[in-house]
Amino acid sequence: MSKILVFGHQNPDTDAIGAAIAFAELQKALGKDAEAVALGTPSEETQYALDHFELAAPRVVATVANETADVMLVDHNEFQQSVADIADVNILSVVDHHRIANFETANPLYYRAEPVGCTSTIVFKMYKENNVEVPGAIAGIMLSAIVSDTLLFKSPTCTEEDVQAAKALAAIAKVDLEAYGLEMLKAGTKLSDKSVETLLDLDAKSFPMGDKNVRIAQVNTVDLSEVFERQTDLEAAMSSANVENNYDLFLLVVTNILDSDSELLVVGEPKINVEKAFNVTLENNRAFLPGVVSRKKQVVPQLTESFN
Amino acid sequence: MSKILVFGHQNPDTDAIGAAIAFAELQKALGKDAEAVALGTPSEETQYALDHFELAAPRVVATVANETADVMLVDHNEFQQSVADIADVNILSVVDHHRIANFETANPLYYRAEPVGCTSTIVFKMYKENNVEVPGAIAGIMLSAIVSDTLLFKSPTCTEEDVQAAKALAAIAKVDLEAYGLEMLKAGTKLSDKSVETLLDLDAKSFPMGDKNVRIAQVNTVDLSEVFERQTDLEAAMSSANVENNYDLFLLVVTNILDSDSELLVVGEPKINVEKAFNVTLENNRAFLPGVVSRKKQVVPQLTESFN
Repeated sequence: MSKILVFGHQNPDTDAIGAAIAFAELQKALGKDAEAVALGTPSEETQYALDHFELAAPRVVATVANETADVMLVDHNEFQQSVADIADVNILSVVDHHRIANFETANPLYYRAEPVGCTSTIVFKMYKENNVEVPGAIAGIMLSAIVSDTLLFKSPTCTEEDVQAAKALAAIAKVDLEAYGLEMLKAGTKLSDKSVETLLDLDAKSFPMGDKNVRIAQVNTVDLSEVFERQTDLEAAMSSANVENNYDLFLLVVTNILDSDSELLVVGEPKINVEKAFNVTLENNRAFLPGVVSRKKQVVPQLTESFN
Repeated sequence: MSKILVFGHQNPDTDAIGAAIAFAELQKALGKDAEAVALGTPSEETQYALDHFELAAPRVVATVANETADVMLVDHNEFQQSVADIADVNILSVVDHHRIANFETANPLYYRAEPVGCTSTIVFKMYKENNVEVPGAIAGIMLSAIVSDTLLFKSPTCTEEDVQAAKALAAIAKVDLEAYGLEMLKAGTKLSDKSVETLLDLDAKSFPMGDKNVRIAQVNTVDLSEVFERQTDLEAAMSSANVENNYDLFLLVVTNILDSDSELLVVGEPKINVEKAFNVTLENNRAFLPGVVSRKKQVVPQLTESFN
């Protein structure tokens, strides 16, 4: 039997990489020949976490069917967010905390989804259910994923289970949760040295909505104005991306992790759906969204609804 | 908040009804206002089990959005096997042991699938994970579901987990597993007093395959010839059903539960796919499939593959 590859979504964030590492480690502890891989290189935030806990970044793959028949997915299920040749392999298992859509299998499988803030919270639960001890570094990358996905518990996606899991993992990893968490989040906000193309690709996902193809990118910052200094360049890059990738509508959600607010930048059509979804009027293609920090809970459902 | 309705698939079998009853009971023990309902009346096999454990048959519903916003699915996920207005309600939770297809949600949810022989095996595990004691009658209907889905452990879908769960549940329900199981299965094989239409509808599911709509019904018997005495009437009814419901291809799988073999009856097109899938030549629209007892594992994947 070939090695089972375990991976998160494209444009991996800390949970996509952290949950893959942790879930592959759990599978190995249960006797499976599993390897965590990634569909992209770590962001600076993720790299900060990997370095802190002395973990190697997973090998980056573009396709999987060339090396295995069997895969396990973490932190995603929608095929358009997965590896290019996902339809050519057998999905043994999924661990996720997103809606289910554009996903199908020919065979029964293990599927574990819970509406919590972070996949790593579920993976931690599975370690406990299987009575497998969590190694310190693995605890560290899982708590990093929880901090990342919940913006240190400030996101509305955060549940009590995420908080308790992070606390338990911090004890195993021997770190000060608040201090480490803020440092890690800040490491992900160094945007000024990045090209606009890189910035738009840091954490971006595509969603079919109605008959439109919607791209939603999110970046974290401690200073909104620093990002919007480059608005003209961002709009040009979003426009090009729309043409190249057949996106109809491109939203950039710029989130201030200190104030827990976001500002939208929108390129493409139908913009009217964005205005309807968030009850705002776009000015200069922008709108301020007070209290919005979660793409999954405060952006995608509202925008999806506006297309119905 | 309105009551959460919990239900299995259309044409409910013993697991669809048993898992719904057991999962609703678990939700109630966890403080939720849940009610098990069904998308059809119990088969004779299921009724035998309900009577034996003195349980009432769940209320039959045709739609759910008229009485609740929130539902939980057991033993199915594909929308075409679910309640007619499934797209109009919020799916909070799914517990299932089938492939995932034609399923999507707007929001994150609890989804628990495992490739075991019976949904009730997973529900029993969830009782244990939540430290909820299983009442005797609930144990009885869950073990009935396991016996039904695995044909008393003879089906290739049966796993060691199903066997262990059934044994543990038999101890709680205080029944002799083998003796009770065989009596229950036999109760489901009284086919002679049923119209051909009823027989075709006892345990039937629709599957999109390629661009075709395939209907696959299964009946259990202890005497294949008793069923095929009515071949002409069955073919006429299958033909009518194809026209009325836009099925392209209708397969009736007649399974001898004592010998663990099946005989196929096929009406509609493309029949060539059936011949390819099972490596048989249909004679008089029939083919004998030695060792085949599981629609899920020995019929659907092979036929699906023949359409690719």
